[in-house]
Amino acid sequence: MIIVIKDKATDNQVNELMNWLEGFRVKTNLVTGVHSRIIGLIGDTTSIDVDAVNAREIVETVKRVQEPYKKANRRFHPDDTVIEVRGRKIGGGSLSVIAGPCSVETEDQLMRTAIAVKEAGADFLRGGAFKPRTSPYAFQGLGKEGIDLLIKTRNETGLPIVTEIMDVSDIDLFADIDVIQVGARNMQNFTLLKALGRSDKPILLKRGLSATMQELLMSAEYIMSEGNSKVILCERGIRTYEPETRNTLDLSAVPLLRQKTHLPLVIDPSHATGVNSLVEPMSLAAVAAGADALEIEVHIDPKNAWSDGAQSLTPEQFKASMEKIRKLEKFVKTEL
Amino acid sequence: MIIVIKDKATDNQVNELMNWLEGFRVKTNLVTGVHSRIIGLIGDTTSIDVDAVNAREIVETVKRVQEPYKKANRRFHPDDTVIEVRGRKIGGGSLSVIAGPCSVETEDQLMRTAIAVKEAGADFLRGGAFKPRTSPYAFQGLGKEGIDLLIKTRNETGLPIVTEIMDVSDIDLFADIDVIQVGARNMQNFTLLKALGRSDKPILLKRGLSATMQELLMSAEYIMSEGNSKVILCERGIRTYEPETRNTLDLSAVPLLRQKTHLPLVIDPSHATGVNSLVEPMSLAAVAAGADALEIEVHIDPKNAWSDGAQSLTPEQFKASMEKIRKLEKFVKTEL
Amino acid sequence: MIIVIKDKATDNQVNELMNWLEGFRVKTNLVTGVHSRIIGLIGDTTSIDVDAVNAREIVETVKRVQEPYKKANRRFHPDDTVIEVRGRKIGGGSLSVIAGPCSVETEDQLMRTAIAVKEAGADFLRGGAFKPRTSPYAFQGLGKEGIDLLIKTRNETGLPIVTEIMDVSDIDLFADIDVIQVGARNMQNFTLLKALGRSDKPILLKRGLSATMQELLMSAEYIMSEGNSKVILCERGIRTYEPETRNTLDLSAVPLLRQKTHLPLVIDPSHATGVNSLVEPMSLAAVAAGADALEIEVHIDPKNAWSDGAQSLTPEQFKASMEKIRKLEKFVKTEL
Amino acid sequence: MIIVIKDKATDNQVNELMNWLEGFRVKTNLVTGVHSRIIGLIGDTTSIDVDAVNAREIVETVKRVQEPYKKANRRFHPDDTVIEVRGRKIGGGSLSVIAGPCSVETEDQLMRTAIAVKEAGADFLRGGAFKPRTSPYAFQGLGKEGIDLLIKTRNETGLPIVTEIMDVSDIDLFADIDVIQVGARNMQNFTLLKALGRSDKPILLKRGLSATMQELLMSAEYIMSEGNSKVILCERGIRTYEPETRNTLDLSAVPLLRQKTHLPLVIDPSHATGVNSLVEPMSLAAVAAGADALEIEVHIDPKNAWSDGAQSLTPEQFKASMEKIRKLEKFVKTEL
Repeated sequence: MIIVIKDKATDNQVNELMNWLEGFRVKTNLVTGVHSRIIGLIGDTTSIDVDAVNAREIVETVKRVQEPYKKANRRFHPDDTVIEVRGRKIGGGSLSVIAGPCSVETEDQLMRTAIAVKEAGADFLRGGAFKPRTSPYAFQGLGKEGIDLLIKTRNETGLPIVTEIMDVSDIDLFADIDVIQVGARNMQNFTLLKALGRSDKPILLKRGLSATMQELLMSAEYIMSEGNSKVILCERGIRTYEPETRNTLDLSAVPLLRQKTHLPLVIDPSHATGVNSLVEPMSLAAVAAGADALEIEVHIDPKNAWSDGAQSLTPEQFKASMEKIRKLEKFVKTEL
Repeated sequence: MIIVIKDKATDNQVNELMNWLEGFRVKTNLVTGVHSRIIGLIGDTTSIDVDAVNAREIVETVKRVQEPYKKANRRFHPDDTVIEVRGRKIGGGSLSVIAGPCSVETEDQLMRTAIAVKEAGADFLRGGAFKPRTSPYAFQGLGKEGIDLLIKTRNETGLPIVTEIMDVSDIDLFADIDVIQVGARNMQNFTLLKALGRSDKPILLKRGLSATMQELLMSAEYIMSEGNSKVILCERGIRTYEPETRNTLDLSAVPLLRQKTHLPLVIDPSHATGVNSLVEPMSLAAVAAGADALEIEVHIDPKNAWSDGAQSLTPEQFKASMEKIRKLEKFVKTEL
Repeated sequence: MIIVIKDKATDNQVNELMNWLEGFRVKTNLVTGVHSRIIGLIGDTTSIDVDAVNAREIVETVKRVQEPYKKANRRFHPDDTVIEVRGRKIGGGSLSVIAGPCSVETEDQLMRTAIAVKEAGADFLRGGAFKPRTSPYAFQGLGKEGIDLLIKTRNETGLPIVTEIMDVSDIDLFADIDVIQVGARNMQNFTLLKALGRSDKPILLKRGLSATMQELLMSAEYIMSEGNSKVILCERGIRTYEPETRNTLDLSAVPLLRQKTHLPLVIDPSHATGVNSLVEPMSLAAVAAGADALEIEVHIDPKNAWSDGAQSLTPEQFKASMEKIRKLEKFVKTEL
Repeated sequence: MIIVIKDKATDNQVNELMNWLEGFRVKTNLVTGVHSRIIGLIGDTTSIDVDAVNAREIVETVKRVQEPYKKANRRFHPDDTVIEVRGRKIGGGSLSVIAGPCSVETEDQLMRTAIAVKEAGADFLRGGAFKPRTSPYAFQGLGKEGIDLLIKTRNETGLPIVTEIMDVSDIDLFADIDVIQVGARNMQNFTLLKALGRSDKPILLKRGLSATMQELLMSAEYIMSEGNSKVILCERGIRTYEPETRNTLDLSAVPLLRQKTHLPLVIDPSHATGVNSLVEPMSLAAVAAGADALEIEVHIDPKNAWSDGAQSLTPEQFKASMEKIRKLEKFVKTEL
């Protein structure tokens, strides 16, 4: 951490600041220039709050040199994290495909979708039982009944299931779920993150609508700091001013987060674009950019879906896209 | 709601769509032009999901004409909502000032701050016991102990207290709190909103970092649809690309939300700007724009604050600002 | 400027970098810590390109400590700039009001509007002769004829005129204009800025739709570095994701730019909000925040305006707003 | 275009509005519901300004159904535009690669870079002679001398040249340039766009930092409406709140613009990310998403580049990336 001191600060004030900083068990190093003095901190600055330093009257500006996350940091964990779920791996070289409906609606809908996505080559089944909807008057998900249908479908098809938790109080219902998803709106629900950190389930953590990549990593750190290192990061589009797509897919997150963290990286082209016809090209782009997994919405009857129909693929569309995705995956792995 | 049909749709498809729509108990009205057909819906379209309509293959585009919120809508509740808390009113003409530290740190810190802000003319005491922090290694708040200190300070000073809830599971701890705050990161924590909707406490709901005004109103609707109509809306800055301020204060939210809703409107200049020296001018601007209340961070010793020191006022600064704020309030009420 | 060196850099590489930096006539100061080395630069770093430093292989990160603008910088010019135009002043304590139609349409329209805004207390007449329109099929302005009508109206009413230039090639047409406006879309049209820097006219420079405050100051610096110090800065809303308003008015720009620069600051509530009914409350807020001037669109017949009718005030509305604005101005100047 | 009328409008007002609309030579169609009336317009609404309609007092809301651009619209020009430049094609199936330095610095630098990128398989040479720089104190480009060096290098290597124009007044200097680039900051410099529309050169038009896709298409329409249909669109990153990358690459623009327009689509991963190590993965992603061309910055000595060194590839890096890019191009064309 580097701290630039204001011109007018007295030596006493600078010394007092340095003493305070050394209380965090870091070494300080003062450089005196013609117009400014700079304090460099040496050691582990993770526990020092940049805002608290900034609040000191004599501080002109502060810059953190080292990242404020440790357990999610590739610097300290050079090898890729690979997460195993019922014999399938996320991360570490193969491309996982998570597919299924936005919401679990009926047993028939879920089972038919599961069978279709499995045949098309999906590795995991997704489906929402608890749905975060903008309107209280919209369908809120089947809740426990949805969880039960997912488990039943998993048991019949063998596809591990991924489903979203919305609140700590529901955590017991997720005991038999394979991968617990934290949605974009809950990325900074820290109570929930801590509770999931005490679980041993893989957590699929979605980037918030306006979260920076560093904030996403800090939210992963919340889970990991409680003991659960099985975190999967998901870019699902960020909010911008562009109205043509629901969100703007920030695909550069894949190679950039790859440098910063060892955690697996998922792209959700369905929520990122909100447009059915953009899902395939953005899936292919994600594979070329090096994503570890895709999460794609598929519905047997999008026009009658209870939520998010506009971005869902039909089973036929998904099958056609999967053929291209798998071909490209193989090419990328063997030829590039 | 207006639905534009694609050119190529057949009459059968259009009829099927109209039948489906009438299932929501609205009337449909088909207009046939040279190049396009339009369906107009008449009646209460609140329960119709725009995305679901968009997902229909033959739909070119959909436009909602009426707002999707009812209980928060000024159209149906023309009179301003005024919320009474221990004899003080929020909304309805007078300016309420909520002041206090970002975090409750110690009994001494809280009590001294409370006495100072009361003397300067604040109406409510704020202070965080549960703190949503980006880093798991930062101070997370005193929790229950903080709640107890707030209550003790309220009982001694008479200032009603405003403090943030982070999770449904903590709700019992807030039984003796006067106003429960929902932070920006929890604005779409729908489980929490519904639970607070079943409480009878006033809820101060902060706009999310990238929430639209309509989404803020929909979150208020979540609370109100469960029976609690005591909702106070707070603009606290939105996330933009500008690095000089922590967030960008969207002050136009005051007159715009005033047109759309009857709920009281609070401005938080401290979080919106993140800069101590901008708090006073933005407070004055908020009063001139017609805000019902201000929420301002004050700390007896900002440079040693455990969180958010850079944006906190000292008691002396707050006192000086309050003199201007109260003068301006009186002028605005009597002269403009 | 502070430069953090990567761990793996050799001493030779660091020395080479320091030699290169000293070529810019600054002193370098190397600090060696346990994990990192830092170079501090002392002297005038304005001519050093941060990107160029960042491009050096051994550089981890760079931070500029001093602002990259000089002539626009309050640090070097503590006194407020006051710009005189035909006996009227912009900056320095009084509030100037610039009012008039978006576009000059006809002699009658312009003259009637000018008379109305003058009677209501406006100090300057605005009106566009060259109009930057998103669509090539929209009205593009009257061009030279519009300039002539503005001059004629100025000569009859005495109101100095403010109008927008879109290209260097038109500059001769502006010889008799009082204040030349540079629109948001041209804020980084550097060829135009340099040419205006060689003029002696006051320049009203509008912030770009997604320009940072520092970029706005750098564009002012372009004009000033060529010799013209009569620059007026205008905040007119920035582009965000919020759809209710045309742009988001960043009113914190007033107190923040006040700290950073000595140039006068104008707020344009008409373009910032795009909504007629928000113009008055945002004007009052701007006055309370300390703006030096307001630029407000007024049209004698908004519903038939050739451009921007939705945000224009009628003369009656403008008159009513001006009464409040002038009352508030007086109050702010004498009482706060 | 669909116009929703406010409840309170009188029949006279509605009739007056319909008469006014019919003056634009469109047919009007009034639908009367219980709570609202809707006017549907039939015919070519391109010349009707949405804002002007919105400004009418009785108008609740307006929605444009048809796009406001014609010449750039795939609806009216279903076949892809293919632009030929000295025997090379942009658009129509093959991938073009435009490579070279950010700025032309010296004859040696340009020639060596040109030879290197040609050997690595680039189709075009890029290089800036006129440089839009944020700071007036930064290197502004060699101007005419740079243009001369580009032409000399083109003549020796055979690589067609792409370079940026900053102002109409320079247009004569571009008489022997192969492709004229319009930078992001000039995307809405309408005077420049119109002048280029009267040229017969291919124009590479970059999306503005906060321009919507529709605004980009409208700027293309400016050029095309003057007669020049050789427009190439370039996505180069948009401005968001994310600090890790210079801009956020909106790669979904490729498949989305493909649906909306017949013009060729270029991706510039260098400016979009600003980070050397992200250029290759984003280039591969762009190819997988279906881009027609890439524009990549290459410098023989990035650490001493006069501008944008941090994002430039070395010739060796570019060669290695080109091998992957060409392999992927072939795979995508033949296998997907």
